[in-house]
Amino acid sequence: MIGGGRGAFIGAVHRIAANIDGQVELVAGAFSADPEKSKASGADLFLDPSRVYGSFEELVKKEAALPADKRIDFVAIVTPNHVHFPAAKAALQAGFHVLSDKPATFDLAEAKELAALVKKTGLLYGLTHNYTGYPLVKEARDMIAAGKLGKIRKVVVEYPQGWLATKVEASGQKQASWRTDPKKSGAAGCIGDIGTHAENLAEYITGLQISELAADITAFVKGRKLDDDGNVLLRFKGGAKGVLHSSQISVGEENNLNIRVYGEKGGIEWHQNEPNTMLVKWIDQPMQVYRTANGYLGKNAAAATRTPPAHPEGYLEAFANIYKNFANAIRARIDKKKLAKGDPATDYPKIEDGVRGMAFIEAVVKSSKANAAWTKLDV
Amino acid sequence: MIGGGRGAFIGAVHRIAANIDGQVELVAGAFSADPEKSKASGADLFLDPSRVYGSFEELVKKEAALPADKRIDFVAIVTPNHVHFPAAKAALQAGFHVLSDKPATFDLAEAKELAALVKKTGLLYGLTHNYTGYPLVKEARDMIAAGKLGKIRKVVVEYPQGWLATKVEASGQKQASWRTDPKKSGAAGCIGDIGTHAENLAEYITGLQISELAADITAFVKGRKLDDDGNVLLRFKGGAKGVLHSSQISVGEENNLNIRVYGEKGGIEWHQNEPNTMLVKWIDQPMQVYRTANGYLGKNAAAATRTPPAHPEGYLEAFANIYKNFANAIRARIDKKKLAKGDPATDYPKIEDGVRGMAFIEAVVKSSKANAAWTKLDV
Amino acid sequence: MIGGGRGAFIGAVHRIAANIDGQVELVAGAFSADPEKSKASGADLFLDPSRVYGSFEELVKKEAALPADKRIDFVAIVTPNHVHFPAAKAALQAGFHVLSDKPATFDLAEAKELAALVKKTGLLYGLTHNYTGYPLVKEARDMIAAGKLGKIRKVVVEYPQGWLATKVEASGQKQASWRTDPKKSGAAGCIGDIGTHAENLAEYITGLQISELAADITAFVKGRKLDDDGNVLLRFKGGAKGVLHSSQISVGEENNLNIRVYGEKGGIEWHQNEPNTMLVKWIDQPMQVYRTANGYLGKNAAAATRTPPAHPEGYLEAFANIYKNFANAIRARIDKKKLAKGDPATDYPKIEDGVRGMAFIEAVVKSSKANAAWTKLDV
Amino acid sequence: MIGGGRGAFIGAVHRIAANIDGQVELVAGAFSADPEKSKASGADLFLDPSRVYGSFEELVKKEAALPADKRIDFVAIVTPNHVHFPAAKAALQAGFHVLSDKPATFDLAEAKELAALVKKTGLLYGLTHNYTGYPLVKEARDMIAAGKLGKIRKVVVEYPQGWLATKVEASGQKQASWRTDPKKSGAAGCIGDIGTHAENLAEYITGLQISELAADITAFVKGRKLDDDGNVLLRFKGGAKGVLHSSQISVGEENNLNIRVYGEKGGIEWHQNEPNTMLVKWIDQPMQVYRTANGYLGKNAAAATRTPPAHPEGYLEAFANIYKNFANAIRARIDKKKLAKGDPATDYPKIEDGVRGMAFIEAVVKSSKANAAWTKLDV
Repeated sequence: MIGGGRGAFIGAVHRIAANIDGQVELVAGAFSADPEKSKASGADLFLDPSRVYGSFEELVKKEAALPADKRIDFVAIVTPNHVHFPAAKAALQAGFHVLSDKPATFDLAEAKELAALVKKTGLLYGLTHNYTGYPLVKEARDMIAAGKLGKIRKVVVEYPQGWLATKVEASGQKQASWRTDPKKSGAAGCIGDIGTHAENLAEYITGLQISELAADITAFVKGRKLDDDGNVLLRFKGGAKGVLHSSQISVGEENNLNIRVYGEKGGIEWHQNEPNTMLVKWIDQPMQVYRTANGYLGKNAAAATRTPPAHPEGYLEAFANIYKNFANAIRARIDKKKLAKGDPATDYPKIEDGVRGMAFIEAVVKSSKANAAWTKLDV
Repeated sequence: MIGGGRGAFIGAVHRIAANIDGQVELVAGAFSADPEKSKASGADLFLDPSRVYGSFEELVKKEAALPADKRIDFVAIVTPNHVHFPAAKAALQAGFHVLSDKPATFDLAEAKELAALVKKTGLLYGLTHNYTGYPLVKEARDMIAAGKLGKIRKVVVEYPQGWLATKVEASGQKQASWRTDPKKSGAAGCIGDIGTHAENLAEYITGLQISELAADITAFVKGRKLDDDGNVLLRFKGGAKGVLHSSQISVGEENNLNIRVYGEKGGIEWHQNEPNTMLVKWIDQPMQVYRTANGYLGKNAAAATRTPPAHPEGYLEAFANIYKNFANAIRARIDKKKLAKGDPATDYPKIEDGVRGMAFIEAVVKSSKANAAWTKLDV
Repeated sequence: MIGGGRGAFIGAVHRIAANIDGQVELVAGAFSADPEKSKASGADLFLDPSRVYGSFEELVKKEAALPADKRIDFVAIVTPNHVHFPAAKAALQAGFHVLSDKPATFDLAEAKELAALVKKTGLLYGLTHNYTGYPLVKEARDMIAAGKLGKIRKVVVEYPQGWLATKVEASGQKQASWRTDPKKSGAAGCIGDIGTHAENLAEYITGLQISELAADITAFVKGRKLDDDGNVLLRFKGGAKGVLHSSQISVGEENNLNIRVYGEKGGIEWHQNEPNTMLVKWIDQPMQVYRTANGYLGKNAAAATRTPPAHPEGYLEAFANIYKNFANAIRARIDKKKLAKGDPATDYPKIEDGVRGMAFIEAVVKSSKANAAWTKLDV
Repeated sequence: MIGGGRGAFIGAVHRIAANIDGQVELVAGAFSADPEKSKASGADLFLDPSRVYGSFEELVKKEAALPADKRIDFVAIVTPNHVHFPAAKAALQAGFHVLSDKPATFDLAEAKELAALVKKTGLLYGLTHNYTGYPLVKEARDMIAAGKLGKIRKVVVEYPQGWLATKVEASGQKQASWRTDPKKSGAAGCIGDIGTHAENLAEYITGLQISELAADITAFVKGRKLDDDGNVLLRFKGGAKGVLHSSQISVGEENNLNIRVYGEKGGIEWHQNEPNTMLVKWIDQPMQVYRTANGYLGKNAAAATRTPPAHPEGYLEAFANIYKNFANAIRARIDKKKLAKGDPATDYPKIEDGVRGMAFIEAVVKSSKANAAWTKLDV
């Protein structure tokens, strides 16, 4: 992993995402341009100190020098935007596959150079346009590809956020600072950071490419150097039209990425705020509500789902909270540390909860047998 | 891990939950009562074959015989209900902490015996009442404990499902079969399987204990031996009243666990279908919408959240899909296997997407500078 | 009209409901037991003073004495509960049809007596269980009657309100006072006032009759004489089971009457908070969203709809606000009264809005013809 | 009334809106350019035949000739667009106030001429931009005017419909025919018909005027002469920016007019699909849900509401359905007509429902007194 040291956001997200399926193991990293900080971050992650490096150049060089069965299989790049390209380039040239956070590079020229390098090396390159990972996003794409909505006419895609409605970067907040700095973020702020997610989602789902656009971007917050809001008219190859807008000054909005696509026969609507629901609209029939993990979905949506029918995504993370607290409780026990009252590590269901659950079942059965007579729970 | 072999559902959920935070490593298992199947399941999980056992008795015995720094720290029990108690008992007696799926045991007598054993051994025992792991469930509990809603008067808790509306168990479906079998499930079907989740959630959030109840449970599907629906009136210690109903024949319902609690001053409403939203109701003020991961939440909700403000739970799993597909693509490359067109492993954003993203940004900036002139995207 | 004088709530609702279709004209009334107040209320409504009476007995007697083509066609009873029966009885005995607010009478004995009188006189008697007037409620009933959901198994019907969470009646509020007074309201408070709406809705939609019930009602507010909350288990003829709960202490709830019905093949869910939407659930297909006024609905839903496809109910009332303000502006003009700045009567769209609308259209057409060139709106 | 004869849509809506408050009485009309049809329509409405005219010119002339206390107070114009101006002009010149359907005229030149005439005559002119009649729309306007959201930065306003996704006008459907005919509708189709509602709503709520726009309108359906979809970038006086899009080919959309406004301190969101709810968003506090008719709303929202707290709009129309059916049942009785089984006029709650309601109350009270003992409902 390159980037993602202490205080970073997306690095932690990548690590969790990599852990979920137990198929990827983090073994080396250059977590910060500051070698001290990189070391400290590696220690947080229980890594072998000899594989925690002070720079991505060092990582690439030393890993490449290891025997084939010891070295890393691929590099994950989770730095601010301006480092994406040099890090990816170095990794590819050293023979490593690359999974990079988006945007791919700092500008279009770099992106074209990188594309050429990927082609030349024959290595794999992936980009975490993570929203295309949702099962129902895949279902939408497959429905449209199969012609179920008819020829596509209109696309409305939005990505409003509100977190930059005030001059957060003035407070030194790390996420805000680099995202509003043209030297680290690139030619655009809001449009680069989240407008590209909207663009990618629209093209992924519809299978259509934007052919031309008319845009009006604005920096609303005084003194901000990059846009924090953008409104764009879209025209797609083949004649569809659309609207894309993204914003970081839409007060009170979280990450409300959403898309509506209308074809000649039907339409779809999906919101990442409630990602397990997709509305499917028809000319003469009631709207349908597709839900993740049901049998009527196609194979790609199914392949992107970890839980059987009716277990919403998010469920796994709640489940993981039980494990986390329990693991911390065990660790405290091993370390002979006493947990303070109210420590989250004390917050997992215990045997007393189990006893009450059994008492509940028995009371219900007893009451129901007695024609719903009131029955005491007394344990 | 005890249980959770091929074809099981909750075992996989436990493994993912354990993986998410990178704090727990699965090193040993007795995945099935059938030693062959246990071996095969262990191999699926890349485990050392010497630590894949043919029974939980064997697991407990052999692990206990290992040196302290080699043996497992705790056992996760993910079998059908009737095995929960013997497995937990064996593990505790051998000195291992236990994290068990719910319900704790087969009946109340076993639960009381287990509680005594936990007390006697001084070991940790956790129960995966996973719904209490949600950040907003913790926030609800904390708000009520702090008196923000005033004295609690009424609780409505529901857990409707629809998957057993027909006689699914007749088809041999594994989940349905043991859940409807009194020998494996216990005295109750629906009430034991999911009614206990509702009961636990109500007691967890309110901090109140059910003192008595009046119940009417029914097996609607012909020939089913255990209830598939239950309606219960509740009375809590301290005077609150309530309704609990759970169902497995409520056609079209997924896992719609939800709860409403009303106090003298305010109320809360939470649905696990949309777990990152909680409605907070007041006598003379507009209802508020609490959302996971915002700064106005308390420390326990914050501790249960992995993503910074505005990234919904579920987001991590979509993110993980990118990692999964990319990892599979790399594995295929290592194995020199050619991926078929449409193979999910080919479905991750690639360099071409990166180039388009950069072209999009540059076109937007250019168009906006030209007063929203139409600008081509041509890469 | 009997009842519904100044300060009353449901009388005004009846009058608006009667006006909407222009089929009913209010010509006479006994609006209060206090003759002065009745006169004043009649004057508010522009009625002929000779037909504004001091008591319902007087109304019934004098109207009956008028020639057949001059007298009223029917009586609307909108008093507190204890007057429903004597007023209805007097009207029927004088030969008038009756439309009464619910509940029909003060107690069951009166209701049976009234039923006998209706039968004997052969006159029409209607009861304003108004929630059965919604188009989608009729659609639900018709779907179930046609067997589309299969045999009904489970019904969950709720009517939570929060407006009596504090002792409102102590403040002299008229609505709260009589509803919490056993002498005016009857044997039950919450259960009589709104629980009966839930009961009626459940029986209307399912076509099933409740055969027995088990209830737990409570007066939570100290000193209140009638229940303000009730939880009830239901059993229906034919084997369906259910839960009914209604409440007036569920803080923050408005009139959240809602119902869920599950049959062997499908289910429906309807909320009067959003009355133009009904969810229809199926075993193996995505949930459907039925919406008022669409072509796929049956004839009874269609007959209950005043607006063509896609105009939500509520739309008419917003429309009426334009008429109301404009009529008041004209009245002020006729009366040579100057309207104060901000008077609602000044709040309707005017010619300036019309000019801007036309300018908008022309600017849009002009801009679009010029390939989305920026175009000024300058009027 | 001018226009609104048999087969018309908006004429009926105007009549209902005028009826609701009992302040306006329809006494004369020229319902169609076809005198026969006008007569027939007048008869449907129980009008005096001598005041049903064959043309708007006749109406205006003859009504003006009546004594002042007999003649109409104002004219409502509900014709297709091209007649709006000549009818309004004739009415104003004859001394009548005018309430016109929108758009005000056929084009901008006519609108300016009409504005001059309104000014000159000093008469009242109102335009039914009906969506501004909603209570929460007024609340939004008042909140913004009071500075609660801070300086406005961004506006997103949408009006998607789907009813013209196919060539409906080819079937002779009256609404579709004139709306897609440039001779009757004006320079724009979708943008004129509903885009102007969006424009008006945005300006009404924000109090800001659009200063310039960039538009891209399209006729997607082959052979259609006017646009059926339009996407527009907006700039407002004072620096706010925005997006407006309206569509009649967005399959499956009803009348989904909605608006989001973001200021420096807060934002609002309102959907006319669910008009009694408005979301209010803040930088550091949970989102609030404003609901029609609550005490925390301002005086203009209150003035636009007919029902006390917690009775949603739409409620009145359901209530009116009871009145309509009951009135029709009485009419059938008067006319000695037998109603067929299933006739909607038979569909109103009757005395049997009243008896069951009373039996329900008594059973609940009895059961609850007996500690929730099962109690029969047997009437």
